[in-house]
Amino acid sequence: MSSTDYKFFGWVAKDKNAIGNMTWEEYTPKTWTENDVDIEISHCGICASDLHTLRSGWGATDYPTVVGHEIVGKVVKAGKNVKHLQVGDRVGVGAQSGSCLECKYCKEQREPYCDKGQVGTYNGRWEDNSKSFGGYADYARVPAHFAFKIPDGLASESVAPMMCGGVTVYSPLKQLEAGPGKKIGVVGIGGLGHFGLLFAKALGADPVAISHSHGKEADAKKMGAVHFISTGEDKDWDTKNRRTLDGIVCTVNNADMPIAKYAKLLKPGCKMIMVGLPESALENFSLTPLILNNVFIGGSAIGSSKEIPEMLEMAAKMNIRGWVQTRPMKDANQAAIDMEDGKARFRYVLVNEKHSGKL
Amino acid sequence: MSSTDYKFFGWVAKDKNAIGNMTWEEYTPKTWTENDVDIEISHCGICASDLHTLRSGWGATDYPTVVGHEIVGKVVKAGKNVKHLQVGDRVGVGAQSGSCLECKYCKEQREPYCDKGQVGTYNGRWEDNSKSFGGYADYARVPAHFAFKIPDGLASESVAPMMCGGVTVYSPLKQLEAGPGKKIGVVGIGGLGHFGLLFAKALGADPVAISHSHGKEADAKKMGAVHFISTGEDKDWDTKNRRTLDGIVCTVNNADMPIAKYAKLLKPGCKMIMVGLPESALENFSLTPLILNNVFIGGSAIGSSKEIPEMLEMAAKMNIRGWVQTRPMKDANQAAIDMEDGKARFRYVLVNEKHSGKL
Repeated sequence: MSSTDYKFFGWVAKDKNAIGNMTWEEYTPKTWTENDVDIEISHCGICASDLHTLRSGWGATDYPTVVGHEIVGKVVKAGKNVKHLQVGDRVGVGAQSGSCLECKYCKEQREPYCDKGQVGTYNGRWEDNSKSFGGYADYARVPAHFAFKIPDGLASESVAPMMCGGVTVYSPLKQLEAGPGKKIGVVGIGGLGHFGLLFAKALGADPVAISHSHGKEADAKKMGAVHFISTGEDKDWDTKNRRTLDGIVCTVNNADMPIAKYAKLLKPGCKMIMVGLPESALENFSLTPLILNNVFIGGSAIGSSKEIPEMLEMAAKMNIRGWVQTRPMKDANQAAIDMEDGKARFRYVLVNEKHSGKL
Repeated sequence: MSSTDYKFFGWVAKDKNAIGNMTWEEYTPKTWTENDVDIEISHCGICASDLHTLRSGWGATDYPTVVGHEIVGKVVKAGKNVKHLQVGDRVGVGAQSGSCLECKYCKEQREPYCDKGQVGTYNGRWEDNSKSFGGYADYARVPAHFAFKIPDGLASESVAPMMCGGVTVYSPLKQLEAGPGKKIGVVGIGGLGHFGLLFAKALGADPVAISHSHGKEADAKKMGAVHFISTGEDKDWDTKNRRTLDGIVCTVNNADMPIAKYAKLLKPGCKMIMVGLPESALENFSLTPLILNNVFIGGSAIGSSKEIPEMLEMAAKMNIRGWVQTRPMKDANQAAIDMEDGKARFRYVLVNEKHSGKL
């Protein structure tokens, strides 16, 4: 099979019961333009966003869809306008595949905040109304601006989850100016949070892990955590650790999380950055502790074309590896169920070795 | 009557129906220490905090109390340890009268965020359990650290409301780095908000007034507003003014305020600082717009021993005058009722000319 003789097969989700019920089918990718690349997918991480989208948790999903936005693979076709990539390059694609590239924010390489909105790697629509499809698949077609060359020396299964999960915490760590002398809290030690610890440490900061139970303490300390707080098991954890942190990255997104208590851990003047999009609004959110302690809660969405290469560079230089478990592409349904059940330690990565339309 | 032959008379509040029902009585001030000053009060602004406290809106008030924390008057007695003030000095006192003065934050002159908490100018308790009493009164006794000399040339009635209302917006404006080239929104054009416009302009920024109706537009423009947004009358005000502001100071504190829409006015990476302590939690607060736009909501409480003199200096230098209406001290009850009814334009200031225990 020649490198341009391929069809787009993937795990198609058809309705809100799709977790565990995706079907392997052919679909029509975005309309080709000379700004695009086609990628033969070798790896795709399973991100919580995939689950939210599969079950229409963030509002009605535009079914049919193929999820997956932690893609690594090989360029098999490159459009005429593509300068920075060529056939054969190993590239990664994250959660964003499109933006206007003309507004103030795009020009500043802050594409996630494009004035016209972004096109997600899946469940999005292109200008001509064709749909964007993700990486639980054989191939992906995306504008080359959002495909990033991966430095040698980084294992593909380790890089895949950095493309969304990794950079989603790398960006707020940079916003918090995580570095020497700073204590940075990471709430939730999962796919995103474990990168939070690894990257905070790599940046020279002292990471503090904040998790429901002590179950992940040993692992968190191996990832670099200097301190571990269990919100479910440590008595008076919020008062005992009050004003000890210079910043927090919160990867948890339950509507009933103890957000006011997390905020209490911050030193006055400091920020907590939320990165997990919740499916519902917070109940009874009080501004009082923010005012009395001069602290801030805000958010950050994925990462930009400036941050992704920067993160990959750092990972290569510091030999940072995601803690992942690989699963064969054919087992995507079971892997999604296991992810939903919280079994991933700390990220599942689907591995695709066939690309023949067959599993 | 000699300057040290005085008694402490003031408007005593006895229960949660005190708005309009305070009684003029003698009370026992804090126990004298050599760190204190006694002040013969000439002016006291009426702050929204006074009303919250009079009606136990922020939790049960420690009645009996005397409210008022926008105090201006003359030092009539100074403790032996007091170096920076002497009898006869005109001074101002704001919302805070005590803190440990030893912790990291006190040492950094960030007393509102003292690790051991602050003692409010009223409704607080001193170390010996004596109570703090405010400025709807003839005299006030406070630790001299929290009494600030007022530069010549500033009218007392204009300075009084700067002591709390003024510095409560001055501090977040400084935190937002309000200055040339920055567009700063001020939500709520009342006692605090009008200082927000005046000070933002004085700092060189372009203030944008955000109010329910257009009723205060003409005044806001005289205060320096370059643009006026009516959230009640302008159609699609949030989308039309999306991403136009470099920061917001929000002086409004209703539980049902359109906080997500205010946040939409911010450019990505920017902050909204809340300064009005609400009496209840927000219902249905969604983190989603914060995450998707990379914006922050936080709070700031009053101002510090660094910021108050800085603000007074600026006001003297730039000839900034609060827009106030004076009311005689004897009319404090009616003035409190009128304040509650939203009639102040933009701050009531009680004027005390007697100091004889009689009104």
